[in-house]
Amino acid sequence: MKLREIGEFGFIDRIKGGCFIREKNVIKAIGDDCCVFRTSANLATILTTDMLVEDIHFLRDAIPAVKLGRKSLAVNISDIAAMGGIPREAVISIAIPPDLDVEYLDALYDGMKEMAREFDVNLLGGDTTSAPKHLVINVALVGEGKEDELLYRSGARVGDIIFLTGNVGSSAAGLDMILNNREVDCWTELLEAHHNPVPHVKAGRIIASLRAANSMIDVSDGVASDLGHICFESGVGAIVEESKIPVTKTFEKYVARFGLDYEYLSLHVGEDYVLLGTARESAADTLGRALAKEGCHFFVVGRIVEGQGIRLIGRDGKARAMEARGFDHFRKERDIEG
Amino acid sequence: MKLREIGEFGFIDRIKGGCFIREKNVIKAIGDDCCVFRTSANLATILTTDMLVEDIHFLRDAIPAVKLGRKSLAVNISDIAAMGGIPREAVISIAIPPDLDVEYLDALYDGMKEMAREFDVNLLGGDTTSAPKHLVINVALVGEGKEDELLYRSGARVGDIIFLTGNVGSSAAGLDMILNNREVDCWTELLEAHHNPVPHVKAGRIIASLRAANSMIDVSDGVASDLGHICFESGVGAIVEESKIPVTKTFEKYVARFGLDYEYLSLHVGEDYVLLGTARESAADTLGRALAKEGCHFFVVGRIVEGQGIRLIGRDGKARAMEARGFDHFRKERDIEG
Repeated sequence: MKLREIGEFGFIDRIKGGCFIREKNVIKAIGDDCCVFRTSANLATILTTDMLVEDIHFLRDAIPAVKLGRKSLAVNISDIAAMGGIPREAVISIAIPPDLDVEYLDALYDGMKEMAREFDVNLLGGDTTSAPKHLVINVALVGEGKEDELLYRSGARVGDIIFLTGNVGSSAAGLDMILNNREVDCWTELLEAHHNPVPHVKAGRIIASLRAANSMIDVSDGVASDLGHICFESGVGAIVEESKIPVTKTFEKYVARFGLDYEYLSLHVGEDYVLLGTARESAADTLGRALAKEGCHFFVVGRIVEGQGIRLIGRDGKARAMEARGFDHFRKERDIEG
Repeated sequence: MKLREIGEFGFIDRIKGGCFIREKNVIKAIGDDCCVFRTSANLATILTTDMLVEDIHFLRDAIPAVKLGRKSLAVNISDIAAMGGIPREAVISIAIPPDLDVEYLDALYDGMKEMAREFDVNLLGGDTTSAPKHLVINVALVGEGKEDELLYRSGARVGDIIFLTGNVGSSAAGLDMILNNREVDCWTELLEAHHNPVPHVKAGRIIASLRAANSMIDVSDGVASDLGHICFESGVGAIVEESKIPVTKTFEKYVARFGLDYEYLSLHVGEDYVLLGTARESAADTLGRALAKEGCHFFVVGRIVEGQGIRLIGRDGKARAMEARGFDHFRKERDIEG
């Protein structure tokens, strides 16, 4: 079915069911100029926004619509997780090209609603418009957290251990599969990591509430680039041990099978959406135990040092500079993020 | 200068000056995963978002970059004004096509910062990405207001007077100039109304704080369509007197000069960004006087009645049905909003 058969308001009527899952604090949702809600007393408000553009962030034929919907919300939820916050209320802007049919959009919104339900997020409204050619999805997400618990990029201190809350590299390998048209075969796990990232909200909340960490970020541009942001904002340097970077067996097999650049795929591509942070060394055990108890992971992968820049101790034991080779949208180091 | 010469982070460094004008309640801005701020105790939080897409909402050659910047923020501020709220914190997502140079973007952000300063709005962050072809700007804006003062589309009651806080039609005439390549001549005022709308935040605040109105919306799709939203959400009908609809002398001259459809341009195109609302009749004088005292306007243009649909009493004195002919993004009643 084509959108022109139901029109803009017919489309909004069609998608609005299931958007609104937590009524308690909501005063006005969908169908007015704005949405209106109450924030919790004594909590700081967190706001983030992310835009996904067809042929820049995704290829329409390479990702199922339902997973694109999930991911468009997941990347924003992950930004709130990166501060140790709780995601709450979202608004979605979408620019729809004329060749997209209603069934595609149903699946896209089904994906967003799934992700919203899983993370207790309300979809409270947005903006629906046409597009000349490329599908564009923008999410703005409001969250909240205790002001004295939230973690920023800027808090890392010399001597801190550097941690990750999950595996990296699998999403990059999944992207590599798409860009090189590799057969899915036994690599579905990698494609899934790229298409269906799960934000680490629970881990972020545990880390923040223990008040044991000093800085945090989510791995969207790759460990090298995102750790670079922490170092830059905190005025420190870092040493990372490549052998301690958590990757899956499937990732290792994939890299070996196609003779790919292990460091590049594990540390420089990103879209892992795990958390990367730093904490005082004495807190590492507490953090690790608290996270394990809740089914979350905690890997110590390096240390914050004086100076600037990141040194990587390779799997061969040799140290080298780890320059960020992550994606710069205007320098185009790679053509598409997939 | 091309963006690739300075890169994504160089660009962010370049534009971030002047974004942040009200420090008091801001905890974290620009340069982290999210922005973080405190909302006022006892006020409800208002959230709105609007996406502007090149060749759908604007033609890049037809609007100066600085005015496009102003307008992209203005349309969101107007949504907050439509509820009687106070605009506060904004995040901007932008997808930039490869042929846009840095100077264009400087002007675009200068326009946003101007508008932000005029309405005491902080630009606290956003998302910067490349685009394959069309420039896309998405603003998400957080505002606040007293829960028992905010006005919605759904509150209109039978017997209410219908009011406007400013002239309509000039923006539509300005769009008509662009679409028909008419010489600017003596019509600059119309083009300016289309390019540089000023949100009616002050009027909205006065109306809300007097607690005398029952419903409100901003005129973005045209009086016919937006009054239709109020009627639909409130379960009422309306009668509008065309002779009472406020238009400028320049609008009247323009319509007469080119033999255009007066009703269509004044009531069905929109982008006027004045406020349209309803209030009990006994409050009309109070509202009019309070608004006039602060330099704002108040025009009574009709009345809410039982039933459904809107009747228009034409300038010829004859009544007819006023069907919304506003823009539907998927039905394409007109080709571009200009």
